[in-house]
Amino acid sequence: MVNGQPGGTLRPDDRGFAYGDGLFETMAWRDGALRLFDRHLQRLQSGCRRLGLPVPEITGLVEEISALADGQTRGTVRLTLSRGPGQRGYTAPAAPAVTRVIGFFPDSPGPAPAALAVDLCQVPASINPVLAGLKTLNRLDNVLARTEISRRRLDEGIMCTPAGQVIGATAANVFGIRGDVLLTPELSQGGVAGVMRGLVLDCAATLGITTRETRIDVDALLHMEEMFLTNALTGLRPVTSFAGRPLGSGKLTHALALALQARGIAEARAC
Amino acid sequence: MVNGQPGGTLRPDDRGFAYGDGLFETMAWRDGALRLFDRHLQRLQSGCRRLGLPVPEITGLVEEISALADGQTRGTVRLTLSRGPGQRGYTAPAAPAVTRVIGFFPDSPGPAPAALAVDLCQVPASINPVLAGLKTLNRLDNVLARTEISRRRLDEGIMCTPAGQVIGATAANVFGIRGDVLLTPELSQGGVAGVMRGLVLDCAATLGITTRETRIDVDALLHMEEMFLTNALTGLRPVTSFAGRPLGSGKLTHALALALQARGIAEARAC
Repeated sequence: MVNGQPGGTLRPDDRGFAYGDGLFETMAWRDGALRLFDRHLQRLQSGCRRLGLPVPEITGLVEEISALADGQTRGTVRLTLSRGPGQRGYTAPAAPAVTRVIGFFPDSPGPAPAALAVDLCQVPASINPVLAGLKTLNRLDNVLARTEISRRRLDEGIMCTPAGQVIGATAANVFGIRGDVLLTPELSQGGVAGVMRGLVLDCAATLGITTRETRIDVDALLHMEEMFLTNALTGLRPVTSFAGRPLGSGKLTHALALALQARGIAEARAC
Repeated sequence: MVNGQPGGTLRPDDRGFAYGDGLFETMAWRDGALRLFDRHLQRLQSGCRRLGLPVPEITGLVEEISALADGQTRGTVRLTLSRGPGQRGYTAPAAPAVTRVIGFFPDSPGPAPAALAVDLCQVPASINPVLAGLKTLNRLDNVLARTEISRRRLDEGIMCTPAGQVIGATAANVFGIRGDVLLTPELSQGGVAGVMRGLVLDCAATLGITTRETRIDVDALLHMEEMFLTNALTGLRPVTSFAGRPLGSGKLTHALALALQARGIAEARAC
């Protein structure tokens, strides 16, 4: 659906296509509602402000999504906002006519696999402090990293800055546990501040778990006792092997998985 | 023109729109031909190989562009290639149906202004070695930097890495002269390897000018005796003030401007 039109198309001068000039959210549709919608909305609105895009009118958005997903109990909704059509050149139009694309994708059947084999990606994460944390349409690094992990037959891969600082997985955030401390990369240089990452951090605070959002280098990641990945669709998934070394999940991962389940994230699980 | 269809549109699931998954070239159309087409083609083909996109068939491309620009003596051609429609998610289709968009833009009338006031941008350049040098559709850093220079009423701005290494202008490459040495940033971390940059480096070699493609930090750029910007459309333009300090152009800039003019780049000029 493009700007409210089912079956709509995009103009070839759309700045989303020309420059990746926009943002998106990928949201879980569960039992006839958008899960964690407030968190998705908060990131989207923050992104609009940082990119200088008009903040969308929420009621209309919700109505469009609900109409599209009507009758479905489970699926994925992708909402994309771009700066819309523009003249040639990087200069943004003074009054952009934002393009709004909403897609509904029924979930593929079958339970998620229990194993999650992860390794370091050779493809680095793109770094830019002014874009860091946002889910922008500039995602070529993730695309190339995904190609790499498919070729290497991994389930996921960890992307780092060229300087070796951990950013996240190709389509998830990463957490590690060492001692009784929960660690996750700070995202001032790159990466996406995932909504499930935010929920995990809130759960950890509620549970009184010592947490650090901090710079994590590759060597530190290789010495984590437990690791898990988070994503709005797949919840919390323990990493069962990292860089060839088997990993299990202990009491902190279990506690966080239970806390997420209690908040309606049915997919969250420990090993 | 989309995939050969005048007035064609894009599907909303095009990966160019979804992830900036593609490349483009912006080329000068002069006297019924694409200027520096071989160089544009070389960068495009190199980009296709690096992104895993099928390399386009050249004869068909040239025919489409020529048909679109038929009867025009002067203008700008933008050629965009994206990985085409795809499923949701970063994973690229195994056999992509590349989307090809060609646009022709008549040049706006009037000579280019003689002054070129440039300053450092606060918006940093996005850094990623696997994308560096390519003209990918991931250009949000340039978009935001362009917004910054418009707001500051500059003619152009110099973008640096977060660590303060010079990359280039928002829509041009940058050269500096110090002593009798021509310097330009090496582009292993970010930026676009411009076709006019390549031609200037070739001219400099022919003229026997000592040239260094090297890391240039902000402080070094502030101590250049001359500076100029290069771009496929605007040729060579001397910077007339940088960070508030007036600059002129001396014998090396003049020699290079003349060398470009001799190669058909009519826009190249010294102060």
